[in-house]
Amino acid sequence: MTLAPEEIRALSVDAVVAAVNAGTLSASAVAEAFLAVIDAREDAVGAFETIDRAAVRAAAAAVGGGPLAGITLGVKDVIETADLPTGYGSTVYAGARPLWDAPVVTIARSLGAVVMGKTVSTEFAMSGPGRTRNPWNPGHTPGGSSSGSAAAVGTGMLHAALGTQTSGSILRPAAYCGAVGYKPSFGTLVRVGVKALSDSLDTVGMIARTVADAGAVTAALAEAPKLAAAALDRPPRIGIFRSSRWDLAEPATREALARAAAAAEAAGASVVEVAVPDWFEELYRCHDAVMGWETPRALAHERAVFADRIAPPTRAFLDTLARTTRADYDAALARIADRAGILDALIGDCDVLFTPAATGEAPAGLGATGDPVFCKVWTLLHGPALAVPAGFGPNGLPVAVQVVGRLGRDAETLAAAAFAEAALKDATS
Amino acid sequence: MTLAPEEIRALSVDAVVAAVNAGTLSASAVAEAFLAVIDAREDAVGAFETIDRAAVRAAAAAVGGGPLAGITLGVKDVIETADLPTGYGSTVYAGARPLWDAPVVTIARSLGAVVMGKTVSTEFAMSGPGRTRNPWNPGHTPGGSSSGSAAAVGTGMLHAALGTQTSGSILRPAAYCGAVGYKPSFGTLVRVGVKALSDSLDTVGMIARTVADAGAVTAALAEAPKLAAAALDRPPRIGIFRSSRWDLAEPATREALARAAAAAEAAGASVVEVAVPDWFEELYRCHDAVMGWETPRALAHERAVFADRIAPPTRAFLDTLARTTRADYDAALARIADRAGILDALIGDCDVLFTPAATGEAPAGLGATGDPVFCKVWTLLHGPALAVPAGFGPNGLPVAVQVVGRLGRDAETLAAAAFAEAALKDATS
Repeated sequence: MTLAPEEIRALSVDAVVAAVNAGTLSASAVAEAFLAVIDAREDAVGAFETIDRAAVRAAAAAVGGGPLAGITLGVKDVIETADLPTGYGSTVYAGARPLWDAPVVTIARSLGAVVMGKTVSTEFAMSGPGRTRNPWNPGHTPGGSSSGSAAAVGTGMLHAALGTQTSGSILRPAAYCGAVGYKPSFGTLVRVGVKALSDSLDTVGMIARTVADAGAVTAALAEAPKLAAAALDRPPRIGIFRSSRWDLAEPATREALARAAAAAEAAGASVVEVAVPDWFEELYRCHDAVMGWETPRALAHERAVFADRIAPPTRAFLDTLARTTRADYDAALARIADRAGILDALIGDCDVLFTPAATGEAPAGLGATGDPVFCKVWTLLHGPALAVPAGFGPNGLPVAVQVVGRLGRDAETLAAAAFAEAALKDATS
Repeated sequence: MTLAPEEIRALSVDAVVAAVNAGTLSASAVAEAFLAVIDAREDAVGAFETIDRAAVRAAAAAVGGGPLAGITLGVKDVIETADLPTGYGSTVYAGARPLWDAPVVTIARSLGAVVMGKTVSTEFAMSGPGRTRNPWNPGHTPGGSSSGSAAAVGTGMLHAALGTQTSGSILRPAAYCGAVGYKPSFGTLVRVGVKALSDSLDTVGMIARTVADAGAVTAALAEAPKLAAAALDRPPRIGIFRSSRWDLAEPATREALARAAAAAEAAGASVVEVAVPDWFEELYRCHDAVMGWETPRALAHERAVFADRIAPPTRAFLDTLARTTRADYDAALARIADRAGILDALIGDCDVLFTPAATGEAPAGLGATGDPVFCKVWTLLHGPALAVPAGFGPNGLPVAVQVVGRLGRDAETLAAAAFAEAALKDATS
């Protein structure tokens, strides 16, 4: 078969992999189809820190087959690559060449994925925004810290892009850019070779166009085929969870959650309101204490040596975090020692929770990347969480619902997210 | 006061810090006292990968004060330093210069410690031994992977040296070299900037001349003064734990354990035999499954790109580990989810366990670094563990007892280890 570029781009990850392995589609044709979008849109969006087109074409030509054969993948700039500069989002290290590829990149390449380039990160995956614009409106932030990964996927430049999340750095930009963001259970994807921000929180995950694609790429990289394979044998039991910060949810977010709940219920799911326990607010303090202690230490060298070259918002954020005491940190770690049990208590007899992914649509302006408030606790608790597109807000920008599952129950969570995605598609089409 | 070099070397960490802060002893005099031992013994021992004497003297001259003022510190070669080459123990990366100091090094320097050099590591902290010899007998291994750190401290070249442990890489070489090895509770010291071997197991720790010194340096680096401050208000309750691999304990190790038990009892401790539960052997399989899955992936780039340049023992070990399946790995992680509870069950109503630190004295030969069998499970369980010198074996080489405590109860464990150390000193003097 000979497919037009737009037909190639419309294929799912599984379909591309099947076609490339069958020899009916070349990885080069896939790469060209996506390079064409990059050529058309990158100047306006600024999703990439580096693209080496010759290297992309050489890599695509060399693809033999494999579980990710021909898939176009972006790599967040805080993830190390030996053949592409890795600046960790900072002018401090601009142009640096690490000694190695991060294992997740080595694995992706070994499975046949084509690394299309490094995507823009905020500085050290913190607060200093890069130059990326929201693909739906260039005057609005794409979110962060995985800004370029979300914007590139939201623009259709890539099948998928690697991101990292310590507070809300995968799900929030995915929500803002109309992409699916998937933070797998902690440790599902190898974190080695990723610039550390908080050893107890940092999670590598995926931004993709659909839940199925996000699951397929992650399952392959995790070498855990089971991850993406679970189909629900019944509609999911969904709990609506407003969290203790519901006052920060703008109308666009409240409507997205209501829309997702209504669509899921119409599709046969049971949907119930889940009470927010008194102690939920404590978990915010725990997240802030863990990150507060760990992040200024993870960046100890940069703070000591490059303080005057770190962007002011990054430095200010680090200084705020650095007020955390060891006692606060130790108490926080003790409080969350049984993360799985806490998630079980919150999810109760539901399969998953629906909760906001962000406070609203992407805020106007490029000087900040929005508030991770609705993601922090779920990052702290290490369970799977996805941002699933749920229509648009009053400014015409995408909004999403967050689907949260139990620790290690990624397959069930992905299945519930796919159910929600399909139900929302039916409801809004 | 003016002290002779041997008087300076005889001071504890706390005494040096107090004297340097009081202005009665200069960090330069301390550095010179230890450089003299390095000059005298390094050619025979080979503990260091790199020593920059000019940089040591400049750093010592610049010490103003602080909680580690004037302390001489060695840094294992898998821990990154921007100003000293970091080869990660491998010819693959020999002479490499990382972009940054690992945070634990930045913190040490900021507290007034003087980094004396990089100490020899086995290749990637795995199986390929470096050139270090046992300071007690050059025909015997110093153990590994923290070979140089243990040999340097065992020779009296340093107050303390940083090590890392994934199986038994701090405690075993410390035991072989007559030093104290201290693996703190997982996460006590920042792991960022350390070449990863197994994200779920890798622990940064300390090798020092005494329990008090190991605790003092670790407490300062962890910014957790409480860690080293707990005095026991009563003699400890000690459980003798032979583990499920007692058949591998040589007479030298059995005698060391008996000696430690008798000395502690004579000093007033209660000492009881603790039963080894049926399920203890499972924990070995869990350790091997976690490391088996994680290590070949942590070193994915090196395996893919430098396979022919990795030392044969490292490659062979990696190939063996790589047989582990994702299902084995996931099952192991699920089995040990409640590490604190497992440690509580093993320790029962005792304060700490006494168990072997190694199978016996350091084996003859330099081609291998000994068996980590008696340390693996305690690394898996994330609790504090120390190797405390407990006399000598039939070959005149040091032997040790391992003191194991509850997760996060480092202060109590250090206190019990110090009690054992004092009791053993009295018994053998």
